[in-house]
Amino acid sequence: MTIHLAVDAGGTSTRCVVVDESGGCLGYGRAASGNPISAGAALAARSVAEAAETALRQAHAAAGSTAADVGSVLLAMAGASALSGTELFAAGLAPLGVRARFAFAPDLLATFCSGTWRPDGYALVAGTGATAVRVEGGEVARTADGLGWLLGDDGSGFWVGHRVARAVAADLDRRGPRTALTAALLAELGLRDDGALHQGRPAVLQRLIELLYAGRPVELSRFAQLAFAAAGDAVADGIVRDAADALLHALEAVADPAVMGPVVLGGGTLVRHEALVARIAAPEVHRVEDGAVGAAVIALQQASVTVDESVFARIVRTLSALR
Amino acid sequence: MTIHLAVDAGGTSTRCVVVDESGGCLGYGRAASGNPISAGAALAARSVAEAAETALRQAHAAAGSTAADVGSVLLAMAGASALSGTELFAAGLAPLGVRARFAFAPDLLATFCSGTWRPDGYALVAGTGATAVRVEGGEVARTADGLGWLLGDDGSGFWVGHRVARAVAADLDRRGPRTALTAALLAELGLRDDGALHQGRPAVLQRLIELLYAGRPVELSRFAQLAFAAAGDAVADGIVRDAADALLHALEAVADPAVMGPVVLGGGTLVRHEALVARIAAPEVHRVEDGAVGAAVIALQQASVTVDESVFARIVRTLSALR
Repeated sequence: MTIHLAVDAGGTSTRCVVVDESGGCLGYGRAASGNPISAGAALAARSVAEAAETALRQAHAAAGSTAADVGSVLLAMAGASALSGTELFAAGLAPLGVRARFAFAPDLLATFCSGTWRPDGYALVAGTGATAVRVEGGEVARTADGLGWLLGDDGSGFWVGHRVARAVAADLDRRGPRTALTAALLAELGLRDDGALHQGRPAVLQRLIELLYAGRPVELSRFAQLAFAAAGDAVADGIVRDAADALLHALEAVADPAVMGPVVLGGGTLVRHEALVARIAAPEVHRVEDGAVGAAVIALQQASVTVDESVFARIVRTLSALR
Repeated sequence: MTIHLAVDAGGTSTRCVVVDESGGCLGYGRAASGNPISAGAALAARSVAEAAETALRQAHAAAGSTAADVGSVLLAMAGASALSGTELFAAGLAPLGVRARFAFAPDLLATFCSGTWRPDGYALVAGTGATAVRVEGGEVARTADGLGWLLGDDGSGFWVGHRVARAVAADLDRRGPRTALTAALLAELGLRDDGALHQGRPAVLQRLIELLYAGRPVELSRFAQLAFAAAGDAVADGIVRDAADALLHALEAVADPAVMGPVVLGGGTLVRHEALVARIAAPEVHRVEDGAVGAAVIALQQASVTVDESVFARIVRTLSALR
């Protein structure tokens, strides 16, 4: 029985699903980041191999499948097209006995296919970054944003966390309005405002600057949750509202009246936007946890298996039982 | 005759003035960045020594002054208080024969003192960064902003250049309004929009992303000039107007009705804001090129020389003749 390895390799973690051609998921494994761009080549190859090893072990116990049965490996990841080749991952999987053909798919397509078996529709993902895509005939036809923290990702976790940090800095600096975010952020960082001044500026602000510049800019994403937690505070509410506007704006930018279909929402930041879902004018809106189901869907499609409503439902159900 | 070395050590270049106790400037030298925070300790010490060597050579030719006549060295620089000591610069100047006491002053104070001999007033500086200070009795009493590109510097060169880059990215991404900044920025970078797509996104946008992420974020400052050059374009005008608002806001944040005095404007970005000066409600507004005059003023004050209107005028006149 032919099986396929479907890998959803994210910037934080990697998920590998062993799926058979009826849509039955036989094994599931998780590991660290499998994206060479964010994690580096060595860690990425190791993470994919580790997740695959766990998934294959489970599939062997459940159905007697072995690495020799693997017909293909599908890797869903951001920036997949920029990778020079499959050698990196093939070398990582060879020790497991996997010698199959490799294919890549955009991570956003895997997110979309995690929410629906239909070939047309939209996906909006907001984690650390933010991207919207229009999918037509199972392919990404149009992308909006996803330009990274410096040039875009409007409404993303970084975007929100960055605004939180700037609002707190402006508050402490007496340039911006008072906000509950200040106490929350200082508590998060273990800082205390004792009223002391340092060169005509609050000493706590100086400490905040030193701490935040010592990290990488994208780490400001971790403050996004403070904006949601401070609901009722005018500054926090303004940031959350602007983020929702920006995310919907990206979705509108990829919209085509001729392409009707479900909207699939993914990413850790989006889950927090309660009010946003109600603002999406689409017949079906689905939230998904990650791109694991979608990677399995794409792996089967590339193996010429038709993924209809019932095959899709089997993937969702059997994978859900494994994790 | 006692002379003093007054050094204005900026992030881009360093200026050293040899000044006598009547306010006569006898020598002037320039070199690369003398700020250890931005340039690193080795380059900073070398730059200060190089500028001092040129200035001392000129002072020797003009007035026979030597390194042995140097009574003090005044170093005006950003973040001076964070420096652990004077050893770094003392070691750099020792080979020249300079063995004098050292003192540091905030760069913003040097900017203020470059525009006026009065002890009270305000300075607003917008170069790559943006800071406003209130000066009372020759000391910085209150600082607003200057929090760096990630957390503040609202209205600065980086702030404007960053918005230019984001506006162009949004335009190419069809999320933002069309703007003349796009053609200007692409021309600046030698890029051409040939209409080709790359993964549902304009190929030229992909190239732009790769180019801009390859540099340091602060390098986006170089695009600030495009916003001023595109006057008449709605997007560019909006960015410039918001920047002016932010700069005036910082100035208002340090204002104290009890402290009347001149407003001194400095920094490369501020020079471009034609409309901003008219919006400053102060009896005197002065623009200055850098902090060289002010460093000389502070050096003399620290040597117990009273810098009144006529001494100040002599510093300005004699330094201007040297550069």
